[in-house]
Amino acid sequence: MAHDPLPAALPLTDLTRHRRLREQGSPDRADLDAILDAGFVCHLGVVVEGRPLVVPTVYGRDERQLYLHGSVASRSLAGGTPVCVTVTHVDGLVLARSVFEHGVNYRSAMIHGEARTVTDPAEKLEALRLLTEHAAPGQWSYARRPNRKELAATTLLALSLEEASVKIRTGAPDDGDGPDAELGLWAGTLPLASAWGAPVPDPVLPAEAPVPEHVARRAGTRYG
Amino acid sequence: MAHDPLPAALPLTDLTRHRRLREQGSPDRADLDAILDAGFVCHLGVVVEGRPLVVPTVYGRDERQLYLHGSVASRSLAGGTPVCVTVTHVDGLVLARSVFEHGVNYRSAMIHGEARTVTDPAEKLEALRLLTEHAAPGQWSYARRPNRKELAATTLLALSLEEASVKIRTGAPDDGDGPDAELGLWAGTLPLASAWGAPVPDPVLPAEAPVPEHVARRAGTRYG
Repeated sequence: MAHDPLPAALPLTDLTRHRRLREQGSPDRADLDAILDAGFVCHLGVVVEGRPLVVPTVYGRDERQLYLHGSVASRSLAGGTPVCVTVTHVDGLVLARSVFEHGVNYRSAMIHGEARTVTDPAEKLEALRLLTEHAAPGQWSYARRPNRKELAATTLLALSLEEASVKIRTGAPDDGDGPDAELGLWAGTLPLASAWGAPVPDPVLPAEAPVPEHVARRAGTRYG
Repeated sequence: MAHDPLPAALPLTDLTRHRRLREQGSPDRADLDAILDAGFVCHLGVVVEGRPLVVPTVYGRDERQLYLHGSVASRSLAGGTPVCVTVTHVDGLVLARSVFEHGVNYRSAMIHGEARTVTDPAEKLEALRLLTEHAAPGQWSYARRPNRKELAATTLLALSLEEASVKIRTGAPDDGDGPDAELGLWAGTLPLASAWGAPVPDPVLPAEAPVPEHVARRAGTRYG
């Protein structure tokens, strides 16, 4: 299977076409990649007996596929059922002059497709490496890697990144040039940001156990 | 309709029973309320033509119901179709000795039910107040409230908080007392936290426009 990169433009399909707030849609795959790379927890939607189930789970990716930790949903995913994976970063509140124009600054990606359970041991190991390094860079080299039994007990799903859509909102409220600007109210945004804190050692470790460099250097860095 | 509080214990149903990592489940409605109150963006799952759709949206609540900004999903929700609403706060990475024991510290709530479109104007106004005050406390009194046309153009959904489940993981990795502890590796957690930043005024405001106290006081406070 050739691993050509996916097209730089996101596809326009029945599932990816924006029906509302179209101006917030982005056609660029680079925006999709950036949103995925900024986080490591997604919300995975599946249909179980006609009802939706939305489960938070951890993901990683390569150029063409998302890999998901799928144990929670696995019993529902036999045989390639359709899934929807959404990753959202909330960047702040949009405080407009009118309640009606209030909103959220955010970046959100939605991926549609049929999830495939990864069964080939080599692909599974590689998928787990991608997922681990995505969430916890440096840990694949540092921690003990899975043995055969552990790998067998891990459920990983693969989902093509082909059919995806992106929505992004940034910046000030939209009512600064409308009649409500005359009200003389303050308006603007209240930004929201996430950051990694200082590592917390497992209490059973000796007090002097040094924090590995690849963990220590994340403290204080921005997330999301 | 009496507004008795919902039972303090979450119900055990086919939809709320935890099938995996049961030790992370909480039976307490107080934990559900705390998770809902700590955030304002949920992931709303619906089924559209047999496929799942997971959409981020804003919510508020009262004692018995969640109110959701529902425009995105509204065309799919006529006639009380089943929904699943999930709210997740990611509190950090669990860095264990083995890759297999890696995980996430998090708080997550899942609500199942049939969403009802709010049509009564009085309930709609109250739902919008709850939603606005939940996301942006103080703005309902400060900003211009919706007129009749704006209220009509707003889609709000109500969802009973009755059928819900909660999962929470906190603390150190689980392999501190297993054979992997002998490896002498560092293990612990890397906390993740969100905070509100300094308000950013709309660039069209006069430079001296004062930030209202109810907005200014959130800067630097923790979110999530």
